[in-house]
Amino acid sequence: MLNFKRYKRVPVVDLPDRQWPNNEIQKAPVWCSVDLRDGNQALIEPMVVEEKIEFFNYLVKIGFKEIEIGFPSASQIEYDFLRQLVERNLIPDDVTVQVLVQCREHLIKRTFESIQGIKNVIVHIYNSTSTLQRDVVFNMDKEEIKQIAIDGTNWVKEYAEDFDGNLVLEYSPESFTGTELDFALDICDTVVRTWGGSKEKPVIINLPATVEMNTPNVYADQIEWMSRNFENREAIILSVHPHNDRGTAVAAAELALLAGADRVEGTLFGNGERTGNVDILNIAYNMFSQGINPELDLENVNESIEIYERCNKIPVHIRHPYAGKLVFTAFSGSHQDAINKGVKAMADRGQEQWEVPYLPIDPSDLGREYEPIVRINSQSGKGGVAFVMDTYFGFKLPKGMHKEFADVIQVIAERQGEVAPDTIMAEFKAQYIDKKEPLHFRRGKLEDVSDTSDNYDTKLTLVYTNHGEEKTAESTGNGPIDAVKSCLEKAEGVNIKILDYTEHALNSGSNAQAAAYICMLDMDTKKVTYGVGISSNITRASIRAVFSALNRIRE
Amino acid sequence: MLNFKRYKRVPVVDLPDRQWPNNEIQKAPVWCSVDLRDGNQALIEPMVVEEKIEFFNYLVKIGFKEIEIGFPSASQIEYDFLRQLVERNLIPDDVTVQVLVQCREHLIKRTFESIQGIKNVIVHIYNSTSTLQRDVVFNMDKEEIKQIAIDGTNWVKEYAEDFDGNLVLEYSPESFTGTELDFALDICDTVVRTWGGSKEKPVIINLPATVEMNTPNVYADQIEWMSRNFENREAIILSVHPHNDRGTAVAAAELALLAGADRVEGTLFGNGERTGNVDILNIAYNMFSQGINPELDLENVNESIEIYERCNKIPVHIRHPYAGKLVFTAFSGSHQDAINKGVKAMADRGQEQWEVPYLPIDPSDLGREYEPIVRINSQSGKGGVAFVMDTYFGFKLPKGMHKEFADVIQVIAERQGEVAPDTIMAEFKAQYIDKKEPLHFRRGKLEDVSDTSDNYDTKLTLVYTNHGEEKTAESTGNGPIDAVKSCLEKAEGVNIKILDYTEHALNSGSNAQAAAYICMLDMDTKKVTYGVGISSNITRASIRAVFSALNRIRE
Repeated sequence: MLNFKRYKRVPVVDLPDRQWPNNEIQKAPVWCSVDLRDGNQALIEPMVVEEKIEFFNYLVKIGFKEIEIGFPSASQIEYDFLRQLVERNLIPDDVTVQVLVQCREHLIKRTFESIQGIKNVIVHIYNSTSTLQRDVVFNMDKEEIKQIAIDGTNWVKEYAEDFDGNLVLEYSPESFTGTELDFALDICDTVVRTWGGSKEKPVIINLPATVEMNTPNVYADQIEWMSRNFENREAIILSVHPHNDRGTAVAAAELALLAGADRVEGTLFGNGERTGNVDILNIAYNMFSQGINPELDLENVNESIEIYERCNKIPVHIRHPYAGKLVFTAFSGSHQDAINKGVKAMADRGQEQWEVPYLPIDPSDLGREYEPIVRINSQSGKGGVAFVMDTYFGFKLPKGMHKEFADVIQVIAERQGEVAPDTIMAEFKAQYIDKKEPLHFRRGKLEDVSDTSDNYDTKLTLVYTNHGEEKTAESTGNGPIDAVKSCLEKAEGVNIKILDYTEHALNSGSNAQAAAYICMLDMDTKKVTYGVGISSNITRASIRAVFSALNRIRE
Repeated sequence: MLNFKRYKRVPVVDLPDRQWPNNEIQKAPVWCSVDLRDGNQALIEPMVVEEKIEFFNYLVKIGFKEIEIGFPSASQIEYDFLRQLVERNLIPDDVTVQVLVQCREHLIKRTFESIQGIKNVIVHIYNSTSTLQRDVVFNMDKEEIKQIAIDGTNWVKEYAEDFDGNLVLEYSPESFTGTELDFALDICDTVVRTWGGSKEKPVIINLPATVEMNTPNVYADQIEWMSRNFENREAIILSVHPHNDRGTAVAAAELALLAGADRVEGTLFGNGERTGNVDILNIAYNMFSQGINPELDLENVNESIEIYERCNKIPVHIRHPYAGKLVFTAFSGSHQDAINKGVKAMADRGQEQWEVPYLPIDPSDLGREYEPIVRINSQSGKGGVAFVMDTYFGFKLPKGMHKEFADVIQVIAERQGEVAPDTIMAEFKAQYIDKKEPLHFRRGKLEDVSDTSDNYDTKLTLVYTNHGEEKTAESTGNGPIDAVKSCLEKAEGVNIKILDYTEHALNSGSNAQAAAYICMLDMDTKKVTYGVGISSNITRASIRAVFSALNRIRE
């Protein structure tokens, strides 16, 4: 039994007049990618410079305007990478590069060497402020911890005097979620004051959930409390940086946006230390699915996955929101049926707005295919099989036929697990289209005799084989199907009734194939089955369907 | 550019007097595993019967008291599986088996056939109630949809009369998150009334986020609204069933618990349709990390992973909360340093309560090893390397030595990425312990001469080789190190100063090896370096450390 008493409850915020639960997300925040820093540092194989450059270019391509590229004063590789970005002219004018540095003078000096020649830069200083870290790591009191931040701010201010580009200060009270709120507020206000922050020269105050420590509503309370209590809120761009230790980083970021955050630091697909940083793409797709401009160009999730997996050597999980291989796949029969109906309703109504059960967004909006939506297994039920036949192969099985054919597939599914569309099609051919024994239609001659006074209008001379032996029959009917039925009743002694008939083109154009479906009742055995025929000649298709059904009935 | 205007905002709840944000989770809910139904139906290869039985037994073992085993009326496999559970006597008396069924009489009849002989059963009926499904899937108005639920309830009531075991009704307004709240309330109240639900005979009302449609606070508002407005709240066990389409299922479940939910349906590691069901283990570990009894026996996460991966053929992602391979791994140097200090502080204080920066829980509580906690890469910094030397190999490097040795490892890390502990140890041996050329200590004879009147107390006869050539030196000093120094100054003409010396046992017992560390300054070149020697003889270890340092200085 787990000794849960070893752990203590993390304090919550007393904020009964909180406003954030009344809010809704209205627009995208400023996105800052920390893939190349927080993400990269947590890789088993960190990226080499060329991979970093490819990743950087991709982040720029999909619309990131702020990109933390590393900790150039701490690592020669990151220093070199930044210099390459500068010297190869890879930073667009509208993109701001962010560099992380501790509040130590020699590191800040080295950082300023690394950023020479950059047009727009965010210098991001931090120090840890939590009760636990003050106690066990630094052995310092609050004033000493605060002094670290003041010194860091002053050093950046000093070195910034000789820097030519645009420079914004970012300050993070690291381990914010473990810090007393009033102390976090004091230290942030002090940094803003020390820097001389103002509406025109705002400071980014980043409040990281360095370790996610509570339910996401508590983080929202913390953000709202800070946002309401800053001494000079308009001098601050309020940034959040959630980690995913409790599996709720996306929620924490979203609730923080309700609570007043202006900016989110995170990574693609949530790479980062331990359980990762918050997944920016997840948040952005969430916004997209609600009709909000995500301010990122996310229409090719496959490309994002490819670059992410190749550079980071980390897979995207098959159930990862929006990106996983299985997330646009419906296994359940009732889900498949409902998706089918939703897609059809949108088409029938000429509706632009996406509304399909079980598919919160249209996979094709992300460059995903409809193709893998439906997989058939023993749970799928009749709707799924019919959907596959329609979507993959264009066969619009009549509703009455769904169960009959789905039962065939169910048997296979219970034996082998998932049934691929091609297997379903092969079974459809074997069971229906190619059901040509013992009776095999060869050819027929139809005469239109509707101008006679008889109560039939079609005369058919039917040539077919029975166990390979050619036979000819002749009869009449009020149409080709009725005539075929009559021929077979006469020549083979069957006693059948046609309960239903449908036929449709399989594709367009004058040479299009047609598929005909016949529902047949055997009056002797009371057995009911469907038959299917295809041909570019609609009459021949329907005759084949009658033969198919009759062969199935006699099995 | 994504056409975000295709999507509409999902309505939120007007509930300004919501109470849930003021609440904290106090205890575990009733857990219901739906792995064998919702999870299994979403697998590419559904489990075979023997896998299901193994999985069922494991769920029982870790403490699940309610387990949905499938949809026996819809699938022969699930029917057979349930019969096997009964016939092989695998359902403990305190475990309730749950079966899903649509509100259709022949399926309910078949369901009752499947549950014969079970002691405790939940019959779980559902129908879809959302605006979208009423419109495009069922083409029914509210009264017709409600009638489905009433009919289903009545059929269960009717068949239950002949059932011998304990039976609880569960009703789900499927696609609840897309249903108008007042309609969902009406249909649930009607079901409870039809069933004759009471405090003594409660109905499980399960409110699924069949598709996750909004930020998790909105789900919490919906749950609180329902909980407050039920006509007979005490006749209801309020259950939630979140899915993870927006990546916030865990948050949704947690906030729903704040809002009044009594019960959570979900799966291990969040298996399930599309992005999956909510991950029950994640929620339970979250509770555990806050000192709340999770009411599940979760102390062996590795076993959970093994059974899950083998039966479901789905991997647990390396960043999955609590379970992923990398989630107890700290790559960053400052993190490693802080972890190091946190562990040390707990040990020094004899503290039972877990408080370590960056590690929200003790990995060993879940059966995970400390071993993989620290991986050294180019970002690690000196703290991490020292931590590995201590944790893995027992070498407590003096603080002044951390940077010197970390710089050596940094070069390797920048070349090859991650550096394994064994590589670090190999480098430590090569750089320090085995640094025996050109000067190689062979043997020495120490005489304690402290009873003389001279101001030294040790006389050393030192035998060593220089480039293989054996030499002997003799000198005195106020201890062995001073004597060695003096011998070498005399015989080799060096001019050195010993700045620091530490030594410690590497293990316990009288044959324990000791490690000695010497910090040496070369007065000629002003170069400072450390040397390390090991031996079961503490004097020999320190002499070796002097030789090691001198050889390093002269490189």
